Amino acid sequence: MFSFKVIKHHSHSRARLGVLTTPHGEIETPAFMPVGTQATVKALSPEELKACNSQIILGNTYHLYLRPGHETIRKLGGLHRFMNWDRPILTDSGGFQVFSLGDLAKVSEEGVVFKSHLDGSTHNFTPEKSMEIQQALGADIAMTFDEPTPYPASREKTQQSLDLTARWAKRCRAAFQSESQTLFGIVQGGMYKDLRTQSAEQIVNIGFEGYAIGGLSVGEEKDLLFEMTEHTAALLPENRPRYLMGVGTPWDILRSAGLGVDLQDCVMPTRNARNGSLFTHEGKINIRNAQFKDDGLPLDPDCNCYVCQNYSRAYLSHLSRADEIFGLRLNSIHNVAFYQQWMEKIRNAIRNDEPFDFPEER
Amino acid sequence: MFSFKVIKHHSHSRARLGVLTTPHGEIETPAFMPVGTQATVKALSPEELKACNSQIILGNTYHLYLRPGHETIRKLGGLHRFMNWDRPILTDSGGFQVFSLGDLAKVSEEGVVFKSHLDGSTHNFTPEKSMEIQQALGADIAMTFDEPTPYPASREKTQQSLDLTARWAKRCRAAFQSESQTLFGIVQGGMYKDLRTQSAEQIVNIGFEGYAIGGLSVGEEKDLLFEMTEHTAALLPENRPRYLMGVGTPWDILRSAGLGVDLQDCVMPTRNARNGSLFTHEGKINIRNAQFKDDGLPLDPDCNCYVCQNYSRAYLSHLSRADEIFGLRLNSIHNVAFYQQWMEKIRNAIRNDEPFDFPEER
Repeated sequence: MFSFKVIKHHSHSRARLGVLTTPHGEIETPAFMPVGTQATVKALSPEELKACNSQIILGNTYHLYLRPGHETIRKLGGLHRFMNWDRPILTDSGGFQVFSLGDLAKVSEEGVVFKSHLDGSTHNFTPEKSMEIQQALGADIAMTFDEPTPYPASREKTQQSLDLTARWAKRCRAAFQSESQTLFGIVQGGMYKDLRTQSAEQIVNIGFEGYAIGGLSVGEEKDLLFEMTEHTAALLPENRPRYLMGVGTPWDILRSAGLGVDLQDCVMPTRNARNGSLFTHEGKINIRNAQFKDDGLPLDPDCNCYVCQNYSRAYLSHLSRADEIFGLRLNSIHNVAFYQQWMEKIRNAIRNDEPFDFPEER
Repeated sequence: MFSFKVIKHHSHSRARLGVLTTPHGEIETPAFMPVGTQATVKALSPEELKACNSQIILGNTYHLYLRPGHETIRKLGGLHRFMNWDRPILTDSGGFQVFSLGDLAKVSEEGVVFKSHLDGSTHNFTPEKSMEIQQALGADIAMTFDEPTPYPASREKTQQSLDLTARWAKRCRAAFQSESQTLFGIVQGGMYKDLRTQSAEQIVNIGFEGYAIGGLSVGEEKDLLFEMTEHTAALLPENRPRYLMGVGTPWDILRSAGLGVDLQDCVMPTRNARNGSLFTHEGKINIRNAQFKDDGLPLDPDCNCYVCQNYSRAYLSHLSRADEIFGLRLNSIHNVAFYQQWMEKIRNAIRNDEPFDFPEER
């Protein structure tokens, strides 16, 4: 039910074209996953996501566990049926979110005790619990429960963190029993190449169907991020998909695809959209700027999405100024479509073995 | 380009089945118009409105005049093109909204000087100005600029108001020059039958392509509202469409259709939807109620809309509790679909000359 095949290597970079087969269909890689935190990719319908050529989406274990609850979703037939999405889903482990709670989370060898951001109630995530929740949700791809190494972190802290991540990964591997789902491991190791090497060896030795490069949401320090991505991707098995978690702009995605990354996710296209920040082939714009008030042109004349085919910049500008829900929708459709068209161009360049010919970041 | 034909009379009531022909297509009446205040029916796409069988929508002159401005919309090709809606549109005159501003509006024979609710800037609506704005917007049906009689109002005030409304209606008639748009007059007269008669005579004598019954948004005093509607509808020409403005629940709409009303509008389906208040064949429910948290049934098993075909009450409940935009969309789709299915049942009952067999109001 689950397999990954590399179809073609890019001679201009380390990028590869692949096909990831899951119980809910095939994903052509490199692929971008829109984020559906609370069983919905914010503002978008499943039909709109498909029209934008989204092949797989991500769900957040922490949020779904708290509301509506994984047992509720299990009873209702799983996350696919609950949210009416019949293509593949990947769920994260909840680790990133609970560690983001800061003082509200306490880590031990056993797992993490944390307080809900919704009502302050106390909960306990362990590797076993994360597996149980993700099996109830029923996503095609589940992730191991790890400790994302903070940035910056000392060498000592990073070593402790990757060792804990490895012990937890073993417990996840042992606890995860599913015929219709698969499990990806996560490599940590912070900003130390030799520790990345150590973590990659530990995680690969346990053995997973795919490998994620974790702990790299470091904001503006892009060069460091890609140095670690390059180093880590090269350590991962050739015949397994590689997933760079939570990164980033279209240019970040292009760059990491060129380093041999197959899967990516980011809230950027939808979150930016809700703030009026839109990606176009001429650069990023904010649709609320006065210059667009009377502009009858499509948002991005080079885009073939529903928004650019049917609406003007002036209309989008109006909806945004008037705080209309339909504006959030249209902006989100366009940004996701832009990302997916971008992925299609990346895949076509690999397929035709052409250099990545993309506009400069603006 | 504009005509109205009564196809069939209902022997069980004064309802009639009709066809209103406009430059943007035919409307089978009795018809319900969803309200698209700011060039969007809140949360819904044109495609969704069509899938719900919405034949015509309403736009608000006051709001569009203030933002983005009628001249902007004219330059961009008119309201239809601006909002990507190719079926008929009716615009109100702006009168209802400016009079709703209370102390921010000052009335004279000439018109109304008012302050914008957006930025406090001063503006001036006259009958001529309202016609100019509505012609710039380019809706199929424009409305005369009237003074909606407040409720309650003395006989003296009501008389003054209907006389002013008639003088303004004459000025509207004179100022309105369009080959692609038509103009409806509005009858006032408050809660006095003889004054309704007087107003109807005045307005019908001026001569319009259709007639609205105004000033009847009186909240809970339903019997009075329908007494006035019944009285006024009977005074209006048989061969012209009759429009009851801003009323109400599905049962209100059924009742007024039975009194010979052909067109209705109300914000209720979309506004209620955004508060989680949903219409079903088993009565009105609030989807946020705890009982729906684990309920795997469709919202309304007797409804054939997109929402009821694809999602559970539990999912709608979750989206609503999580304040997700997609929940506002799904709730709005269902409520508008419910209204339009309701209208279809009304029209079918007239077509087949069967009694109105509808569930009791709950």
